[in-house]
Amino acid sequence: MRKRYAIAIVGATGLIGRNFLRIIEKSDLPVDRIELFASDKSEGKKLKFRGQNEIVKKLDENCFKGLDFVFFSAGKEVALKYAPIAEKEGATVIDNSSAFRSFPDIPLIIPEINFDEIYKTERKIIANPNCSTIQAILPLTKLNEKYGLKRLIITTYQAVSGCGQKGINDLTECRLGKKQKFFSINIAENCICKIGEVEKDGYTDEEKKAYYETRKIFGKDISVSATCVRVPIENCHGVSVEAQFETDPDIEDAIEKISQTEGVKLKNLPYQKYASGRNEVFVGRIRKSAAFENGIAYYCVADNTLRGAAYNAVKIAMKIIGNLKN
Amino acid sequence: MRKRYAIAIVGATGLIGRNFLRIIEKSDLPVDRIELFASDKSEGKKLKFRGQNEIVKKLDENCFKGLDFVFFSAGKEVALKYAPIAEKEGATVIDNSSAFRSFPDIPLIIPEINFDEIYKTERKIIANPNCSTIQAILPLTKLNEKYGLKRLIITTYQAVSGCGQKGINDLTECRLGKKQKFFSINIAENCICKIGEVEKDGYTDEEKKAYYETRKIFGKDISVSATCVRVPIENCHGVSVEAQFETDPDIEDAIEKISQTEGVKLKNLPYQKYASGRNEVFVGRIRKSAAFENGIAYYCVADNTLRGAAYNAVKIAMKIIGNLKN
Repeated sequence: MRKRYAIAIVGATGLIGRNFLRIIEKSDLPVDRIELFASDKSEGKKLKFRGQNEIVKKLDENCFKGLDFVFFSAGKEVALKYAPIAEKEGATVIDNSSAFRSFPDIPLIIPEINFDEIYKTERKIIANPNCSTIQAILPLTKLNEKYGLKRLIITTYQAVSGCGQKGINDLTECRLGKKQKFFSINIAENCICKIGEVEKDGYTDEEKKAYYETRKIFGKDISVSATCVRVPIENCHGVSVEAQFETDPDIEDAIEKISQTEGVKLKNLPYQKYASGRNEVFVGRIRKSAAFENGIAYYCVADNTLRGAAYNAVKIAMKIIGNLKN
Repeated sequence: MRKRYAIAIVGATGLIGRNFLRIIEKSDLPVDRIELFASDKSEGKKLKFRGQNEIVKKLDENCFKGLDFVFFSAGKEVALKYAPIAEKEGATVIDNSSAFRSFPDIPLIIPEINFDEIYKTERKIIANPNCSTIQAILPLTKLNEKYGLKRLIITTYQAVSGCGQKGINDLTECRLGKKQKFFSINIAENCICKIGEVEKDGYTDEEKKAYYETRKIFGKDISVSATCVRVPIENCHGVSVEAQFETDPDIEDAIEKISQTEGVKLKNLPYQKYASGRNEVFVGRIRKSAAFENGIAYYCVADNTLRGAAYNAVKIAMKIIGNLKN
């Protein structure tokens, strides 16, 4: 008989948590039982899963017994406290926060790029990368293999859904002329050129994620400079990428390599409209860089709540299960 | 007695044309008479100038007699046809379109950078640069002098006012859930990663302006790669800049040099809110580039209808008049 899995979502009532539920529901993941955890204030809420009402429970230290996979989507502090407990109970943990991404013994995985890293450690916590990093670098997978990625300029157009439902609500209100409640300034009329806190060297923690995570995922010292900006868009991040390689990529070959990359779809002009609710990274405007030797430029859009979060995490779990079956 | 000038605005009823009128009105430009020209459909309209109603006249070939300065804000075709006529009549023409920018005998001027170029030609047509190019490169003026600008990555967040009143109206309607009339897609929900037409090499004409105009204004072969994106912002462009120099700029000195640049104002986080209705370029997030050796990065916001258009042009005229007085 085919094995069925006991799965939990921590932070199940949030925007990303609900996307986890939807993605798992639509997947062919054989689910034996699903547990939904959240903070006190969501206890008792009901969420549908494959036709059944599932009751949201309060997260505590005894939640994790008998679970195979636990998806965390509840912020850094919750992950730091509870993920190691779930791990100790024998579950495979996939955490969407930045809590563990820099830990040397914890793999940081884009499943199409470096899935096998999960077998090089004893740890059972796996970190899901930052949303804009995933979509920025996934299209480079095959180009890096052939031409050797060296240098990267990443400039983002990040949707308010990256801040969860609160961000979406604030944009909606600001568009109606009301005063902002969540963002520091009216997000309908301003781009916010700071995501996270500005650190000593002038980069924000969001921008540093692009730097450290790109290097960890590709496993080499790539020079990465990022500028992350919040724009008045409800859902789906845009990212402009300028990449330099060791050897000169032929532009026709570069376009072909990108189009052949798993999880990527070419689109002349990638719009939020195409990407919203989809799992692919939509890539367009591919051209030779006019600034770099051996360089190309492109612009991509992806659903940050799916490809940049829930879908990436569930795909990791699916690949683990697929390998278990073999 | 102080000389007074006869001035005309071609395209006076458009969004930029009205800003020309407002900027001239507020300036201490001694105006003897002002003539407002537009296409047939605006003939007879009245616009206020220094308390007086001025009647908009239909543009024709005999409009330009006795004029000292003619500001063109009426698109490429109108400029190509009428600017040489105004020039022949003895007027100094400042054209806001891209019509003449690439002409070798026509100076392309950011008055704080290369004003003296106007005295190196017999022509009396002066081209006003592209809006996002102006704000992207003005902060580099003193850094280029000291460290030698070499390479530039420009990524834009362009407001819909760059398309005139039609662009603003379309954003307003789209925010209310109505179907777009002007843009090719709902601009409230999508960033448009194509401004102008995509050319053979994959760059749009808007992006090529950044390339050619930066080189012409600084008078040297700088490598420039631009990505221009329209965002759901009513007014004021944002631009992210990554710049590489011949020698390594100390970051403290770079910040000081930028702050000392005429027309530039430092702001930790430059927002549209600060820049709208203002003539300065607001620059923030200045830091060492994590991608380039000898590089810095910054983000700037400016009012594209003023600093990027009307103000730049009027400032050229003011400097010419100032020099005439000396």
